[in-house]
Amino acid sequence: PLCLCWALGPAAASALPNILLLLMDDMGWGDLGAFGEPSKETPNLDQMASEGMLFLDFYTANPLCSPSRAALLTGRLPVRNGFYTTNAHARNAYTPQDIVGGIPDSELLLPELLKKAGYISKIIGKWHLGHRPQFHPLKHGFDEWFGSPNCHFGPFDNRALPNIPVYRDWEMIGRYYEDFKIDLKTGEANLTQIYLQEALDFISKQQASQQPFFLYWAIDATHAPVYASKHFLGTSQRGLYGDAVREIDDSVGKILKHLQKLGISENTFVFFTSDNGAALISAPKQGGSNGRFLCGKQTTFEGGMREPAIAWWPGHIPAGGVSHQLGNVMDLFTTSLSLAGLQPPSDRQIDGIDLLPAILQGKLIDRPIFYYRGNEMMAVRVGLYKAHYWTWSNSWEEYSKGIDFCPGQNVSGVTTHTQEEHTTLPLLFHLGRDPGEKYPLSFASDEYQSAMEQISAIVQQHKVTMVPGEPQLNVCDKAVMNWSPPGCEKLGKCLKPPKSDPKKCFWPH
Amino acid sequence: PLCLCWALGPAAASALPNILLLLMDDMGWGDLGAFGEPSKETPNLDQMASEGMLFLDFYTANPLCSPSRAALLTGRLPVRNGFYTTNAHARNAYTPQDIVGGIPDSELLLPELLKKAGYISKIIGKWHLGHRPQFHPLKHGFDEWFGSPNCHFGPFDNRALPNIPVYRDWEMIGRYYEDFKIDLKTGEANLTQIYLQEALDFISKQQASQQPFFLYWAIDATHAPVYASKHFLGTSQRGLYGDAVREIDDSVGKILKHLQKLGISENTFVFFTSDNGAALISAPKQGGSNGRFLCGKQTTFEGGMREPAIAWWPGHIPAGGVSHQLGNVMDLFTTSLSLAGLQPPSDRQIDGIDLLPAILQGKLIDRPIFYYRGNEMMAVRVGLYKAHYWTWSNSWEEYSKGIDFCPGQNVSGVTTHTQEEHTTLPLLFHLGRDPGEKYPLSFASDEYQSAMEQISAIVQQHKVTMVPGEPQLNVCDKAVMNWSPPGCEKLGKCLKPPKSDPKKCFWPH
Repeated sequence: PLCLCWALGPAAASALPNILLLLMDDMGWGDLGAFGEPSKETPNLDQMASEGMLFLDFYTANPLCSPSRAALLTGRLPVRNGFYTTNAHARNAYTPQDIVGGIPDSELLLPELLKKAGYISKIIGKWHLGHRPQFHPLKHGFDEWFGSPNCHFGPFDNRALPNIPVYRDWEMIGRYYEDFKIDLKTGEANLTQIYLQEALDFISKQQASQQPFFLYWAIDATHAPVYASKHFLGTSQRGLYGDAVREIDDSVGKILKHLQKLGISENTFVFFTSDNGAALISAPKQGGSNGRFLCGKQTTFEGGMREPAIAWWPGHIPAGGVSHQLGNVMDLFTTSLSLAGLQPPSDRQIDGIDLLPAILQGKLIDRPIFYYRGNEMMAVRVGLYKAHYWTWSNSWEEYSKGIDFCPGQNVSGVTTHTQEEHTTLPLLFHLGRDPGEKYPLSFASDEYQSAMEQISAIVQQHKVTMVPGEPQLNVCDKAVMNWSPPGCEKLGKCLKPPKSDPKKCFWPH
Repeated sequence: PLCLCWALGPAAASALPNILLLLMDDMGWGDLGAFGEPSKETPNLDQMASEGMLFLDFYTANPLCSPSRAALLTGRLPVRNGFYTTNAHARNAYTPQDIVGGIPDSELLLPELLKKAGYISKIIGKWHLGHRPQFHPLKHGFDEWFGSPNCHFGPFDNRALPNIPVYRDWEMIGRYYEDFKIDLKTGEANLTQIYLQEALDFISKQQASQQPFFLYWAIDATHAPVYASKHFLGTSQRGLYGDAVREIDDSVGKILKHLQKLGISENTFVFFTSDNGAALISAPKQGGSNGRFLCGKQTTFEGGMREPAIAWWPGHIPAGGVSHQLGNVMDLFTTSLSLAGLQPPSDRQIDGIDLLPAILQGKLIDRPIFYYRGNEMMAVRVGLYKAHYWTWSNSWEEYSKGIDFCPGQNVSGVTTHTQEEHTTLPLLFHLGRDPGEKYPLSFASDEYQSAMEQISAIVQQHKVTMVPGEPQLNVCDKAVMNWSPPGCEKLGKCLKPPKSDPKKCFWPH
């Protein structure tokens, strides 16, 4: 193969582009004006798209937060990097407070690798790859951290269970609801402003130091409980969720303007996307929109896994571009390495591809998208065809409790409440004619036969070469919760953990 | 009131802006890239939007073609201008070949009024306001016509019933399928190219004559049976429907460029919209998309009545504008009169408003939107609230035959298959938080109470002052079909009508 190498050293390193990943939480494909949200309240993100490149066929690796984020930072499917469960079939698992596992040391994370090219890396916001000491982001390549290890939902100021801590670098500096307030009644919280300021400060500092940076801005205002700061409350047609989106839109605009003001926008590659589809169970007040796509978060329908995505790099990416490249959050790993002049690790399977030819030269790279739910490949997309090998929204039991991942939608035989196996005769959809996955192709049609022939070969190859990693999300234990994070002594915020009692985690979805 | 008057005369008339209405057939809100269609294949329309103003809350007056078009050209609700039926409750009616009625002489159509300001008017495409001699468009103000009086669907070259004629001005010049071919197997037809050429020629001729023009370009390629010319077949990700959209997009681009080339773009007001929501019964191969809105054509849910809309007038409309003005096709009547310096008729109720303050000055004019199905006001929108007084998708009988206006969608108690009356306690939705009409507000909430108070007053006022016109769409008779249109003798295409046998038309929806 042709290898391109960069001569590295302090001088050369400064010429490497900065990398800024803006990762949203539970934001859906249909949440931005540029993607057809009818109130069109995201002027900054829409402008970012018109100055950069819009990706219309960009996916996550998993319809849930932790595995999606693990995939982004390792460039590998969760089934390889261990962010899955084998406790039950086809279940989404993540890292709640009582999870015992986290990102294995054997995984190579993007910031670890970027270090070799002289990058300084910071994570602002949600880590979600494990909260126990060995999983700390500063042990996995990040140089700085401001944010929380787990999701910011409950227990809301209940000292019987620890509130989620907020860290600065190695140590906690407070806890959600106690020190970092979210008013659950009004939805007011100034956290996005804090995360914005952290980003602006880090960018300024790095620009002054002349070292290239990797900033992973993983904010959480659009994950329930949704919040916005006072200035934005009540300003959206869309209610509180829209207020949160407007504050994020405003913040992204400020970050991009800051890069321009510092004169480093042409040396900073920026990518905006989300970790999974909108959480329709929280809609309409606390959940976003997946546009016309089917269902949402937790599912392997398009609404669960297709993401809004924008690449921005003035002077490099032609303005107003639109790409139908099938992309994936895992590609951000490989693309970032490519930007830094690095090769991806060769000792393991990397699923992410380098998107630079698609972004800079408008190429279309042929590659499949795999839709996993836990340990099961539920579906695969090849070109415009998507074949479902398994269908499931959620169980009747959960559904009867009011948990609905597809509110107002019901496609007979597709949005099933029992796990339906279609491995011998997959349900096939043409996503160009039928982006909403409503009209399965006739099994008897020539189109079905010829599309499935191609898809089957790709799936066969994927399955025979698949070596799953050790599952990390099988064991839960209340003793491992954030009772006494490092730094808690200084704050007088240490809590006493209960006796260890490890069990299999229960994953209903 | 302040009245603005133009000094009219041959010289002054030439300074009046040309008016070009581009009216699509069954195109849905979600069919353009600018409105979030995921294959984003409408670069010309998207550019038109970025150079002009995008309307996100623009409606038709009725979810079916004939009444919508009658409303556009009269500025009045179909219940006033007679384009409705009383044969059954809340039924959509239109002008098939056996309809006896049509647009009454007592109605004043836009081209009739524009004549007073010296405009020359042409209709290209579908008329749909009655095909019997007294309803001919040249008897209602148009100076020229190229197109057909009815929908281009069947009878497909079946001489037992007449094929739809195509007129040039007063006389037919051929018939669909016989002389104006649509290949129903491949979808090939060059009709959009013919309609495009008609438009370009008319614009050139008018520019040379220095008289202001009104061109009503009412093409039909996106109404089933959908068609595209050879050059566009197979070019869309979306199948044949997408091919038709791409050809229309290309044609609109050519028309706008033609205006620019002739140097009259700054003197031509252009408005693009559609007659009703996408026909989801024809999806996915022959029907479009209503984005994330509920249901489609024939219904009074958002998918049936919210339309894509773009205003374009370089030098007058600021580029990149976005408007949340509640607009309606009826406003094109009043707005066009305003552009021509004319007042709307004062001897009758006009429902359309002048949109120029919204378009030119970004104002938001307070006004309700009424959603009618035949003779029944099904719903009303006031601000961001929409109250349903009646809900109905279609009957169980029709639904059980496979006629589904809401494929893949089902909102319990909303997309009902029996006509459900809610007049005492309307179902209320907030279209900002819930554009998909999935989550009715609680009747007990303060929000419900205060919104309904305002809405009830508006509805009350509307109902007490409503004077319905004589219904025109009650009687059908095979004898009135297009057996022997004027000009048929010259072509040897006259057919012998059967004996007259008038009956009540049957309107299932």
